[in-house]
Amino acid sequence: MLTLEEAPPISLARRWRQVRDRTEDLAASLSPEDQCVQSMPDASPAKWHRAHTTWFFEQFLLVPHLSGYRRFDPAFAYLFNSYYEQAGPRHARPYRGLLTRPSAEEVGAYRAHVDTAMERLLAQPLAGGVVDLVELGLQHEQQHQELLVTDLMHAFSFNPLRPALAPGWSEPPAPSREEAAMRSIEGGIVRIGALHSGFAFDNERPCHDALLAPFRICSQLVTNAEWCAFMADGGYRQPLLWMSEGWAAVQQNGWDAPMYWERAGEQHDGAWQQMTPAGMRPLDPTAPVRHVSWYEADAFARWAGKRLPTEQEWEAAARRGQLADAGRFVWEWTGSAYRPYPGFRPPEGAVGEYNGKFMINTMVLRGGSLATPPDHARLTYRNFFHPDRRWQFTGLRLADEG
Amino acid sequence: MLTLEEAPPISLARRWRQVRDRTEDLAASLSPEDQCVQSMPDASPAKWHRAHTTWFFEQFLLVPHLSGYRRFDPAFAYLFNSYYEQAGPRHARPYRGLLTRPSAEEVGAYRAHVDTAMERLLAQPLAGGVVDLVELGLQHEQQHQELLVTDLMHAFSFNPLRPALAPGWSEPPAPSREEAAMRSIEGGIVRIGALHSGFAFDNERPCHDALLAPFRICSQLVTNAEWCAFMADGGYRQPLLWMSEGWAAVQQNGWDAPMYWERAGEQHDGAWQQMTPAGMRPLDPTAPVRHVSWYEADAFARWAGKRLPTEQEWEAAARRGQLADAGRFVWEWTGSAYRPYPGFRPPEGAVGEYNGKFMINTMVLRGGSLATPPDHARLTYRNFFHPDRRWQFTGLRLADEG
Amino acid sequence: MLTLEEAPPISLARRWRQVRDRTEDLAASLSPEDQCVQSMPDASPAKWHRAHTTWFFEQFLLVPHLSGYRRFDPAFAYLFNSYYEQAGPRHARPYRGLLTRPSAEEVGAYRAHVDTAMERLLAQPLAGGVVDLVELGLQHEQQHQELLVTDLMHAFSFNPLRPALAPGWSEPPAPSREEAAMRSIEGGIVRIGALHSGFAFDNERPCHDALLAPFRICSQLVTNAEWCAFMADGGYRQPLLWMSEGWAAVQQNGWDAPMYWERAGEQHDGAWQQMTPAGMRPLDPTAPVRHVSWYEADAFARWAGKRLPTEQEWEAAARRGQLADAGRFVWEWTGSAYRPYPGFRPPEGAVGEYNGKFMINTMVLRGGSLATPPDHARLTYRNFFHPDRRWQFTGLRLADEG
Amino acid sequence: MLTLEEAPPISLARRWRQVRDRTEDLAASLSPEDQCVQSMPDASPAKWHRAHTTWFFEQFLLVPHLSGYRRFDPAFAYLFNSYYEQAGPRHARPYRGLLTRPSAEEVGAYRAHVDTAMERLLAQPLAGGVVDLVELGLQHEQQHQELLVTDLMHAFSFNPLRPALAPGWSEPPAPSREEAAMRSIEGGIVRIGALHSGFAFDNERPCHDALLAPFRICSQLVTNAEWCAFMADGGYRQPLLWMSEGWAAVQQNGWDAPMYWERAGEQHDGAWQQMTPAGMRPLDPTAPVRHVSWYEADAFARWAGKRLPTEQEWEAAARRGQLADAGRFVWEWTGSAYRPYPGFRPPEGAVGEYNGKFMINTMVLRGGSLATPPDHARLTYRNFFHPDRRWQFTGLRLADEG
Repeated sequence: MLTLEEAPPISLARRWRQVRDRTEDLAASLSPEDQCVQSMPDASPAKWHRAHTTWFFEQFLLVPHLSGYRRFDPAFAYLFNSYYEQAGPRHARPYRGLLTRPSAEEVGAYRAHVDTAMERLLAQPLAGGVVDLVELGLQHEQQHQELLVTDLMHAFSFNPLRPALAPGWSEPPAPSREEAAMRSIEGGIVRIGALHSGFAFDNERPCHDALLAPFRICSQLVTNAEWCAFMADGGYRQPLLWMSEGWAAVQQNGWDAPMYWERAGEQHDGAWQQMTPAGMRPLDPTAPVRHVSWYEADAFARWAGKRLPTEQEWEAAARRGQLADAGRFVWEWTGSAYRPYPGFRPPEGAVGEYNGKFMINTMVLRGGSLATPPDHARLTYRNFFHPDRRWQFTGLRLADEG
Repeated sequence: MLTLEEAPPISLARRWRQVRDRTEDLAASLSPEDQCVQSMPDASPAKWHRAHTTWFFEQFLLVPHLSGYRRFDPAFAYLFNSYYEQAGPRHARPYRGLLTRPSAEEVGAYRAHVDTAMERLLAQPLAGGVVDLVELGLQHEQQHQELLVTDLMHAFSFNPLRPALAPGWSEPPAPSREEAAMRSIEGGIVRIGALHSGFAFDNERPCHDALLAPFRICSQLVTNAEWCAFMADGGYRQPLLWMSEGWAAVQQNGWDAPMYWERAGEQHDGAWQQMTPAGMRPLDPTAPVRHVSWYEADAFARWAGKRLPTEQEWEAAARRGQLADAGRFVWEWTGSAYRPYPGFRPPEGAVGEYNGKFMINTMVLRGGSLATPPDHARLTYRNFFHPDRRWQFTGLRLADEG
Repeated sequence: MLTLEEAPPISLARRWRQVRDRTEDLAASLSPEDQCVQSMPDASPAKWHRAHTTWFFEQFLLVPHLSGYRRFDPAFAYLFNSYYEQAGPRHARPYRGLLTRPSAEEVGAYRAHVDTAMERLLAQPLAGGVVDLVELGLQHEQQHQELLVTDLMHAFSFNPLRPALAPGWSEPPAPSREEAAMRSIEGGIVRIGALHSGFAFDNERPCHDALLAPFRICSQLVTNAEWCAFMADGGYRQPLLWMSEGWAAVQQNGWDAPMYWERAGEQHDGAWQQMTPAGMRPLDPTAPVRHVSWYEADAFARWAGKRLPTEQEWEAAARRGQLADAGRFVWEWTGSAYRPYPGFRPPEGAVGEYNGKFMINTMVLRGGSLATPPDHARLTYRNFFHPDRRWQFTGLRLADEG
Repeated sequence: MLTLEEAPPISLARRWRQVRDRTEDLAASLSPEDQCVQSMPDASPAKWHRAHTTWFFEQFLLVPHLSGYRRFDPAFAYLFNSYYEQAGPRHARPYRGLLTRPSAEEVGAYRAHVDTAMERLLAQPLAGGVVDLVELGLQHEQQHQELLVTDLMHAFSFNPLRPALAPGWSEPPAPSREEAAMRSIEGGIVRIGALHSGFAFDNERPCHDALLAPFRICSQLVTNAEWCAFMADGGYRQPLLWMSEGWAAVQQNGWDAPMYWERAGEQHDGAWQQMTPAGMRPLDPTAPVRHVSWYEADAFARWAGKRLPTEQEWEAAARRGQLADAGRFVWEWTGSAYRPYPGFRPPEGAVGEYNGKFMINTMVLRGGSLATPPDHARLTYRNFFHPDRRWQFTGLRLADEG
């Protein structure tokens, strides 16, 4: 369960090692080709994720703060900057998959070069601002760990062989269904957002009060079985259930099921299968549905006579411990557009571009997914995607006025 | 100034006549060709506006409520339904400009046919629900009156002759600049939205409480002169001022000034001119800037060290009479995404499709413009457009935390 | 039958009047809206055709050759130039339909103004080059007469009312089928193209020799009944019958019948109907098929075990009087790409842009259609369109090696 | 010089080994990532070229003709079929670059598997049709050898590091300029196309007579220096030099020089450099220009007061030994659209799809390039590409009427 408790303190150097190692573990089973592929502009190659997270430390920590540091390769600043305008020009995003060079191996050497230098930096006494930047870099790398998984699954879904990204992966145990219930939460003024102490992204702050009307929220995520009922009832064929642009997306993309659902061949009774990190697997009806867009989540809720919770409602319920399955299966679409909190002020410098400039046309997701690194998500965490995106592990939970 | 006061009561029949006549007055100076043209999918031909607003009464009032009513032409239900899924299939929006037939004259006959029948209906004792539907139809027609103006100006802007839609039109007198000031508003719980009595669109309800932090809001709209300062300071060339998708829009569309601004020829010193309902006119530096997108408004506010007000802040300030120039010049972009109010419930039936299905990817505008019918806008009115749209009379007002 | 004989000589002034009047006759039944609409970039509004053909005379005859001539309106040179780079900048083609002004009536006044001036010019003794230019302008206007019909039919096909462009129009009597036969033509050197005397477009010259192998060509055009057999045999579903890009066009556009074919409602047994100048009409199985693209014509020929004739074969057969039905029903797709004849040299000046710059990616059509002005087509005439276009009256005739 | 002489006969088994080895030699310096990348739908990954050429032998030789042959992997028929409809469904072309698996190494194993089986087949007595198919497969593989080079250069051109595909590559020695001259060729009937004996693609047959008017053709290819003169004279800015669609391509793509030309940085005087198989190299003014589209070649010829030769003229001149530099530098755009020869008949079966279905919207190129395998091109060879393509080694030679 997501909590407000801080992770047990470990030394920054040790945490450094853990996070960096986890990235390399994720990439360990991938061939050089696997690491190079990019299947859509939204996605990035695994090799790029490995290099870009490394560039973040080089650019924002080593160059300004480690005396005598020499860049591994000056060209990498151009190749592996993602979107930081203040950090200079950069390689166009849709062409990341064309970077066959540097090789995955060279990227490994780049990582080692930066790791060595970072270890030197971390052994020094550091100003608070620098420590914060290291932590930001680690959190940033954790975000890219999740993207590495989802981006590669997307690329593999185009391969008729449907390769397994992590052959030994297994579904997290489904939450118990016995307790499924709409939980009533009284209204009133609630505290929203992250306090000043402890790590949080800028978009989680400032902590502020919000006024909520009474509402109910479901203790459990919507499951695959429930989604099948929606489909059986013509959910993808009834325009009245959908936002106008959602219905246009249904028709334009031919959506008739969540992303990655495929009917098995006839020898398997045509049952639903689903692309997973372990390749194609039979659909588990008790598992939370995933790979649905906001449009689909919104239509499902309307079909069910309910609605998506706002992010404030979600956070208030989570703070009360009502959302036992949150953070372990899917990011949960909320009814809230991604906009700045009252009094939001991005930090000075290039890291100020981290979140603020995406606060338009996107919707907030809360919780965390099976691909989120274990110590990464927080109760106040604000994830965000465009309402038509489906390649993340995204699902939903229902709410209503009660 | 926008107020909460109701318009003085007049009989529904008289109000009917006033609204319907105003539409025909707007179209009176237009040639049949002018009435047929459609310059982009977002816009509709004047003739279509005239017919669609008429269809609304035929479809939702006359067919169900006037016994013995006969449709003017059964094909019109297909031709002039805009987006009501429950009212059946309809002509595709981007092809409205291809409807050279029925002619503008036949549309006039259609209007007369429906007017006669409606007058019969209005002479009968009507249930409250029916009266409400008539009022909704009139409000709907008023919305299309504004669109008729903006859509035709858009079409005319493609004509090298730059015709005048309303040759006798003149700018509304600019607001006095002496009082321009940031007005402080204390925080607390404020009432938002329309009360149950009196007409309001469904999206203005339910009336509810919201909690605001203290803020400041400018008593005056941003002017053309201020916008010129933004341009002179490189506002359109600094990516850090812009949302990521706003910057992409700047580059893709080559934006370097508000829509409809053009440099006059050399014999006129190259001064800025602006497309208006009366054709090209010199830019008035003291007038509120208009035809800017949300992206531009947001970037301007960041450049000015301020931000856009939320719609709740705007409404709270307007209720206190702090926004003297609101409603007369431009719709004002707010920082609020267009989402349902807590407890929002669209009405039953096809008119339930009126607003709700557009509550995604759009931003709220408040106030009203020089093209808004005089008795149409309300303090609680929620207009909405996508953040990249510029063909409406859209401007902005600044706010900050104080 | 198309022949090599010249039309009986009439005075240029009389011919002038005939051609100009015919344009106005074609437009006479059209409303101002009908004349303004443009349904795709390839098509132009009727009003534009009327004005552009007039501009041709103003630009290339009156301004250089009639002393004291004053342009009707200087802006028209910009509005109604089609593609003559040497005649200056011009209004973008896809926006022609946005020109609600000048009105159809003003275009009528423009035509009258130019007519009066041209009559003055024609009353003077004229140099041979000037006479040739007048004739070119008349031939040009005749080409636009055909386009006026096809463009407006295209626009009307988007109107659910399927209006009739020429309500009194009737199909030309179908050719007798008794004589249908493959006619053998021996090989050898044949003369191709127009002699120096008499009018011809630059692309029909120079007259030159070509070497043909023996071949056979059908005395009759492919009919609707034959096309139905192709469809019934799965012609639109067998990729092996199609050029690679033709098959892509089938799939992308969902082609499963010629353009403008529609199934009648159930009360009419679902029989095929076809959009014609007189609106929707039952399909006549004995009539030559029309509104097929080159891709479809080519696939049909392959299905029939034959091929399209080359333009040289077509011309050789026509010169021998073997193609009795040519020129009266449809333009006939040939197997020849549209390229310059050996020694082709466009004339000096802006009229040199008339044909040459379109000699790429287009295919030659020969003959003439039901919409071609009676004295316009010639045995050596080379029409041309892209292989995916269908809105002209285009059909085919079969050939083989014999 | 290209000749009509046959290559000296070597055993099919030995030729088999030579061609197959050359493919692997080309790929030898490429990393697994390099082999996987696809930079546009027209291009294919190196790994795909290696596998597809192998599939050709498996599909058309081993499966039908080697008893007991077992496919290496049944999925490969789907993955590595290019466009043979008769050989079943296939992986969509634009997604070839997403096939990170099978790996380059597995493709190597696939090649070895097929090589072993083919050697067994070639050791058997073979029917003539089978021998022809083997030769077709080898010619096919040679075509892909050239594509492998051009496709990878295209991908590398997107990499800011501008990698070298073949670091040791050097320009072929430029042809001597002393003899540059327009050579007159008298007209008359000439023989065109390949005789029945010896290998030729189906599109080179049947051999037939053509009638040519007298013409002149330049003994030398257009050089980089000549192209620079065209550029300096505003060649890319004068619409009158261009085909209408060529001019549109110039404006849409921003063409102002041949593909792969880049200005060096200021420290190198801003001189032109050019992407080559060995990476960026200074432009050699005496070398034949390459990487120009047909549109550019056509515009250059018009600027020079000349034209492109037809493919028949080219072949007639080549047969007379007038084109000393043909076949060694660039494929030469001709003025001929790619259409079937008189009496063309594709072979039965899937290999009948080899050429015929591309005979529309493409232009013929003759000769051969620096990337063409040495024993591959023939005097009668007909290469073809769309007129806007530039990534092949394409140039031109001038002709006129003399």
